[in-house]
Amino acid sequence: MSIVWTSRYAERAKAVKSSIIRDLLKITQKPEIISFAGGLPAADMFPAVRFQEACRKVLERDAAVALQYGETEGYAPLREMIARHISRYGIQARSENLLITSGSQQALDLIGKLLINPGDRIVVEAPTYLGALQAFGVYGADYVSVPSDENGLRTDLLESSLRSGPKCMYVLPNFQNPGGSTLSGERRQTLVRLADQYGIPIIEDDPYGQLRYEGEHLAALVVLDRQNQRREDGYILGNVIYLSTFSKTLAPGLRLGWVVAPPEVIARLAQLKQGADLHTSTFTQAIAYEVARDNFLDEHVKKLRIVYRERRDDMLDALARYFPPEVTWTRPQGGLFLWVTLPEGMDANVLLQEALKQNVAFVPGDCFFAPNLHSQEACRHLRLNFSNAKPERIREGIRRLGTAVKAQARQLQPA
Amino acid sequence: MSIVWTSRYAERAKAVKSSIIRDLLKITQKPEIISFAGGLPAADMFPAVRFQEACRKVLERDAAVALQYGETEGYAPLREMIARHISRYGIQARSENLLITSGSQQALDLIGKLLINPGDRIVVEAPTYLGALQAFGVYGADYVSVPSDENGLRTDLLESSLRSGPKCMYVLPNFQNPGGSTLSGERRQTLVRLADQYGIPIIEDDPYGQLRYEGEHLAALVVLDRQNQRREDGYILGNVIYLSTFSKTLAPGLRLGWVVAPPEVIARLAQLKQGADLHTSTFTQAIAYEVARDNFLDEHVKKLRIVYRERRDDMLDALARYFPPEVTWTRPQGGLFLWVTLPEGMDANVLLQEALKQNVAFVPGDCFFAPNLHSQEACRHLRLNFSNAKPERIREGIRRLGTAVKAQARQLQPA
Repeated sequence: MSIVWTSRYAERAKAVKSSIIRDLLKITQKPEIISFAGGLPAADMFPAVRFQEACRKVLERDAAVALQYGETEGYAPLREMIARHISRYGIQARSENLLITSGSQQALDLIGKLLINPGDRIVVEAPTYLGALQAFGVYGADYVSVPSDENGLRTDLLESSLRSGPKCMYVLPNFQNPGGSTLSGERRQTLVRLADQYGIPIIEDDPYGQLRYEGEHLAALVVLDRQNQRREDGYILGNVIYLSTFSKTLAPGLRLGWVVAPPEVIARLAQLKQGADLHTSTFTQAIAYEVARDNFLDEHVKKLRIVYRERRDDMLDALARYFPPEVTWTRPQGGLFLWVTLPEGMDANVLLQEALKQNVAFVPGDCFFAPNLHSQEACRHLRLNFSNAKPERIREGIRRLGTAVKAQARQLQPA
Repeated sequence: MSIVWTSRYAERAKAVKSSIIRDLLKITQKPEIISFAGGLPAADMFPAVRFQEACRKVLERDAAVALQYGETEGYAPLREMIARHISRYGIQARSENLLITSGSQQALDLIGKLLINPGDRIVVEAPTYLGALQAFGVYGADYVSVPSDENGLRTDLLESSLRSGPKCMYVLPNFQNPGGSTLSGERRQTLVRLADQYGIPIIEDDPYGQLRYEGEHLAALVVLDRQNQRREDGYILGNVIYLSTFSKTLAPGLRLGWVVAPPEVIARLAQLKQGADLHTSTFTQAIAYEVARDNFLDEHVKKLRIVYRERRDDMLDALARYFPPEVTWTRPQGGLFLWVTLPEGMDANVLLQEALKQNVAFVPGDCFFAPNLHSQEACRHLRLNFSNAKPERIREGIRRLGTAVKAQARQLQPA
């Protein structure tokens, strides 16, 4: 008798589906495809020579540490460097406030493990990051979606959701994935105040905060929160768990992210991380430290901002040129994505099939809404990534996509 | 109002405790401590020069891939290499049967996520690997412990446990952690037959199988199972999920393990891995591939076998010389650990306190038993690692430990 495996799967595993983005990644690795689908940084901007130097130094001086098991909380020099770095943005964290994770995605998984019992409600933006919906969904989260606009989460519509007793809120304040919107300063203040008033913690996901191409930096929620909650020794005590990553500034292939939280939360997350993967690669942590140090990462990010701003502008120009006037899109101040809204009656999933025939890819918007919000309305959106393709490919890809959009629009019109 | 975080933790998180091994690792990083506590490979054996060459080649030729996001299932050349490698041991897997994980520990976590509902019974050896108890425990596993002896799991005592309807069995057939025992060929046959008869899948954890210092290689359970379950195209169809890792043969700092399973199980585990960390570091996978290729890893493992065998023998000699005759220990044919049994009435936790004063560390045995088996009997054991310390440190550490054992034994004797 051979096992029928599917009958053995746990309840949580039966509900999980593969992400369309991860599946699209396989298709879009073909060189002939112009892909706006992934959230991929520009591979031509990876500082490969600096990585080579870093590998040489780390392996010459410190192979016995870099190749060995390490502490669950992370490689100490890297944690200290991150603490120094984020302090420049007003986040007064110490090593005790920091956990290194295997990418931000692992932080979401560990937070789900820590906080979510089946049926717990989580407040999310509509739309929101698909990977968070996946990570929390495994633990049985129910979602309470709050609309967002070009200034981010509609905090004026938030209170009724908070009264329903959610476990926490999950928010991307900067250059949101997928919407491209940025939470305004005023709404940040409101959000932190409401979180405090209702006793609902915030998960602040900030992978793109460093990649601002225009406008002024806005204080993180964890900073606004901390100003009210600070203790004399400078530890963070507040209602916010803050996440960031090296994936967009250095290289996603390293799988390095981090969590900033009160020490007792970090200690619990570290216990869960022990069971999940013991610790994140000591080798990649040591390499990232050696690459980033001596101000290299800051200088590198400055270059990224110039290149990505140009690509954003190229995409905005191409959209204006090749897309019909009844289509609208966001104009993000940073990050990697913009968000397109099709005319009523059009479906981005149908458009994708046509686009793939033209060797162009994007992600249909409905997957960024919580399952209970999947609707015809959600299918009117598409997420476009502008960081990965070079300018000429951006123009050509948007041209092809514009042709497909126009063809679909014509089919909708009465004959 | 500031959040009291602990009140927000999910049920599964409240039960989790930090592993004594991970906590000991922090203490034992002090250079003055002779540590037999961790499962650390010998750092002086890491092939640092080969790693340097590999980093240079990968970053020169393939930085755009190695530093970028990758497929959840793993870096294709590495999966193909692993498939070729394990086929030499009779495991006929293809890429579709393989998932690369962030160390074997992540495989245990993903398997727990896939299979375990709260209250599900898992059959484990007594003692067994602590990290598996942690990983499965988070998902609410109950354990059914089956005794083991110098020939591994007592398959003659297994059937009553199988009749109770467990979800799966978790077994380490080779040079078990912590017991050092190896499941005999006859018991392997019995185990696979019983698994088939009762329809209970086996999780076969094999981190040390390559590190055999004497005796003949014994077929893996997944091989014995496959011989009965084979399909013409060579895919694995059976009842066994097989785990292994580069942590003991190459470097644990890479955090690279893998799962071999039927394609539908791999597909499900990959979906769960998406939510857990998107994918394992492309960079470490590309480096591991480049280091291991052209037969390097096989030659390296041959060297490890010589060095570790010598260290095992040094530890066995020192135990015979410095430990009192009422103490017994296993004589492992491979792996990294041996298992010491103290006389009745002695407690390894008390001994550890004394040993730490003498700057020697080990892991008390009780943590390797499922929580419902914690007992005075379980406290009579200690796990000693022999791979990490150099021979002179092994002798000196065992001498000090022997002195501590003798002192504690004297206190137990009637005056």
